[in-house]
Amino acid sequence: MKTDIEISQDSDIEPIEKIAQKLNLSRSQIELYGDYKAKVKLPIKNQNTKRKLILMTSINPTAAGEGKTTVTIGLGDALNRLKYKTAIALREPSLGPVMGIKGGATGGGHAQVIPMEDINLHFTGDLHALTEANDTLSALIDNHIHHGNQLNLDPRRITWKRVVDINDRELRHAVIGLGGPTSGVPREDGFNITVASELMAILCLSNNLMDLKQKVSKILIGYTYDRKPVTVKDLGVTGAITLLLKDAIKPNLVQTLEHTPTFVHGGPFANIAHGCNSILATNAALNTADYAITEAGFGSDLGGEKFMDITSKKLGKYPDAVVIVATVRALKLNGGMNKNDLNYENTGALKRGADNLAHHIHSMQQYGKPVIVAINRFTSDTDKEINLLEEYINQLDVKSYETNVWSKGGAGAEQLAKAVVAACDRPSQFKPLYHDSDSIMDKLNAIVKNIYGGDGVELSYKAKRQIKQLEKLGWDKLPLCIAKTQYSLTDNAKLLGNPKHFKIHVRGIEPKLGAGFIVILTGKVLTMPGLPSHPAALDMDIDKNGKIKGLF
Amino acid sequence: MKTDIEISQDSDIEPIEKIAQKLNLSRSQIELYGDYKAKVKLPIKNQNTKRKLILMTSINPTAAGEGKTTVTIGLGDALNRLKYKTAIALREPSLGPVMGIKGGATGGGHAQVIPMEDINLHFTGDLHALTEANDTLSALIDNHIHHGNQLNLDPRRITWKRVVDINDRELRHAVIGLGGPTSGVPREDGFNITVASELMAILCLSNNLMDLKQKVSKILIGYTYDRKPVTVKDLGVTGAITLLLKDAIKPNLVQTLEHTPTFVHGGPFANIAHGCNSILATNAALNTADYAITEAGFGSDLGGEKFMDITSKKLGKYPDAVVIVATVRALKLNGGMNKNDLNYENTGALKRGADNLAHHIHSMQQYGKPVIVAINRFTSDTDKEINLLEEYINQLDVKSYETNVWSKGGAGAEQLAKAVVAACDRPSQFKPLYHDSDSIMDKLNAIVKNIYGGDGVELSYKAKRQIKQLEKLGWDKLPLCIAKTQYSLTDNAKLLGNPKHFKIHVRGIEPKLGAGFIVILTGKVLTMPGLPSHPAALDMDIDKNGKIKGLF
Repeated sequence: MKTDIEISQDSDIEPIEKIAQKLNLSRSQIELYGDYKAKVKLPIKNQNTKRKLILMTSINPTAAGEGKTTVTIGLGDALNRLKYKTAIALREPSLGPVMGIKGGATGGGHAQVIPMEDINLHFTGDLHALTEANDTLSALIDNHIHHGNQLNLDPRRITWKRVVDINDRELRHAVIGLGGPTSGVPREDGFNITVASELMAILCLSNNLMDLKQKVSKILIGYTYDRKPVTVKDLGVTGAITLLLKDAIKPNLVQTLEHTPTFVHGGPFANIAHGCNSILATNAALNTADYAITEAGFGSDLGGEKFMDITSKKLGKYPDAVVIVATVRALKLNGGMNKNDLNYENTGALKRGADNLAHHIHSMQQYGKPVIVAINRFTSDTDKEINLLEEYINQLDVKSYETNVWSKGGAGAEQLAKAVVAACDRPSQFKPLYHDSDSIMDKLNAIVKNIYGGDGVELSYKAKRQIKQLEKLGWDKLPLCIAKTQYSLTDNAKLLGNPKHFKIHVRGIEPKLGAGFIVILTGKVLTMPGLPSHPAALDMDIDKNGKIKGLF
Repeated sequence: MKTDIEISQDSDIEPIEKIAQKLNLSRSQIELYGDYKAKVKLPIKNQNTKRKLILMTSINPTAAGEGKTTVTIGLGDALNRLKYKTAIALREPSLGPVMGIKGGATGGGHAQVIPMEDINLHFTGDLHALTEANDTLSALIDNHIHHGNQLNLDPRRITWKRVVDINDRELRHAVIGLGGPTSGVPREDGFNITVASELMAILCLSNNLMDLKQKVSKILIGYTYDRKPVTVKDLGVTGAITLLLKDAIKPNLVQTLEHTPTFVHGGPFANIAHGCNSILATNAALNTADYAITEAGFGSDLGGEKFMDITSKKLGKYPDAVVIVATVRALKLNGGMNKNDLNYENTGALKRGADNLAHHIHSMQQYGKPVIVAINRFTSDTDKEINLLEEYINQLDVKSYETNVWSKGGAGAEQLAKAVVAACDRPSQFKPLYHDSDSIMDKLNAIVKNIYGGDGVELSYKAKRQIKQLEKLGWDKLPLCIAKTQYSLTDNAKLLGNPKHFKIHVRGIEPKLGAGFIVILTGKVLTMPGLPSHPAALDMDIDKNGKIKGLF
């Protein structure tokens, strides 16, 4: 059986100009990056399409794999097969997980975006541009302090951290500026992963370059010795940081194995950031195709909620339909089954685990939009398990569709595609979960109670103080971006299924004035991942023809 | 008067396919990066050209500016005007100095490579790929130690350092791995700038991807607790690091304002690294044009010497002619004149400073190749000064040519071009300065005495021990790459002109087994620069049309 990378390498890829033509984007509207990748110049005109938006989300992810990206791609291919003009918008992969354990983010089997190696490795350089811009700002901050510190910045209260696009736990906490007076001012610092950076969020939430510039100017970089906030604008480097992102802001265009146009742009993680591709990419899909499919990271508790409460507002458009991806395997794992036994039929575990799915369906239904379930079938799933799951979902008065996109590509999701089209045509009214003008505690409780199913929130002493400070500074009227483990509805990665009677533990609160949201750090979630004991990098290779193995 | 960036922005740029055609490179041989940049696929066939190689070097650089890159570009344009089929090979800029004080590296006035903004900002992502590969290796090293440390690596003896493509003094010395047992193993570390990295040297000294892979495998990353060397191969990540460089290894093609094809690829600094563009780029120029011009960084004591003793050997080709760029202003500064007075005529200072030029001429002549001087004229230079300088050079039995490429482009260097062609046609025999098989001390003395004009070397205690260790390990039969200030022939940046009776102080020695040379750290030269008190970043901006200002 062919691996994902072999399927990608053997595929019949089309020149990217041809893919652009499908969206009525002329050669002069795109900038080629090699023969199969392009950036699309801004603005991308509204071609008076139907502008139907489909949001892809899922149950809580597990080590078993849910295949949300794979189903997203398969659904796009299915819609195009059925002659619905469709474009997909996806996040671009971070090299951290590519070298670690998660692998890339380009789907799998016969539902992939290609060229997968290029997309997974550097792609068009957007993440590198963000890393460079982020760390240039850090260097400019420390340089300012080193050369007289006119702004009176307190080195102990710099909130802007450096980033790398690498899973590097070694850089989480560091003391920098050592080596004597010619080598800066000693202070504590630490690195985040690029996808957790505020600049990534800004890139993904900006409507154009000047909007991005405006957001960059507002970034809080730290406080003075007398506790006054200092921004990028105060430092005088808004222009320099913005121009480093002049190309990164343009959406990237690639294709699926079945040549469905796919905008792959921006890649904030959904556990530690807001978790969706850029609104420019989603708008590109909306403006050029009748059906636009976008994917929110991890489960509906993370990417899904953030799409509804943060991204949609900036996009100016709510989803017309929501698809929740589930697998029998992941639900069995949620139902308490051991990871190594998942190939065996176990209807008991499946039934228990299905409560996790029921919870996600209910969460998303609260937003007032049609919700559909895609059951991404694995070869090990038995008919009995599939039937049981379908019945379970049916009892919730929700439609579910088995998809086989991994083995069949778009042909494996035609039923789902038809149901999605029907759902998009149903009139529906978006119901907000909270209003930005609500207090931080009210917003937090709305998410914890209605989306996670918890009883409430426990704030650390530090978090309490931070909320007070935010209120005092008038920064509390922003949406929340909750950093939480993706594996559980709670803040404890080990509690699977549909836990009840829990509280969410808030350890810290960080205003992201540029991005326009407040980050809530819960549980033990880290903004810099580590590599596993056997990182994927160990199995990678490239031969003299440039052929790669070990990417997945 | 228009600024460099305005001249670049207003220029009549040709699609890069047309530039490639000039070199008989078909559309299928190149990969576009936007409309005006391309990577050239490997291998680049030898088209049976004349393969004449011209090396551009200079006197010791000063704050007055010498314009070596500008003259290089102007000479290329002049040769093409005279119908000699010519291609240029240059280094690609580092964003560190772009944001700092040096500015970009794309020439100036009417002798520029374009599009200057793109080349100076991210370009085709090569430096970011190197940074990512370098720091991924660091993360894999620390991850190995964290997860059981099977190789028995001594965290106090890790020689592989992290890099950023930023002037960031704050990162020179750091303690990392703090934050408790889940966040790595505490140890001392520090960051270099990417252009000083061994991977940059490897990229620039590799003939193809498999050669690069072989070099990557040999990189020394540190020592075990029992002092045994450990390489990338031992860590098992040669493939992963190599595949991160699969595109970076392909030379980039751009054009000058006069549409001369220019390969801009690889960018090691010449003070802290070997200082020349990739041999793949130089070979690309040699294989596709009759005359290939390449530039070595800083003065002939640094880039020039390293080109002759390191790069040429790997390239398998020695220069057919050497051009030394000098300016009246820089020589006056070398002659003791104050920087603020350079606009005033001062023949005394010029005459004294010209000894610096004489020294560089003599240094390069030792290699047995014809040497020519280009006097890059500035508007403030008086005829009297120019005449005096020409006479001075004439007395050395060397030809010199006034160039006016900044104001006139290629038309300002036609005389120089004719002389260069004549020089290339003269038969000449390369005389090596040293043999790799010589002892480290013999090689060091050869460079210090014959190239710098010094009396000898003073080794620190540490350096002495390191030499013994290198000899013991059999790593001493490699060429030397001396890290030294660019401003002086000595290791003291303040000693201008042509100092005598000095010693070079060697503070440390680092074997670069992948790159295939031994780095000799002298004086106070730093492998991570800092930003000035008023960094260029403060004056940069971008408007809503994407038009940039403040790059230079």
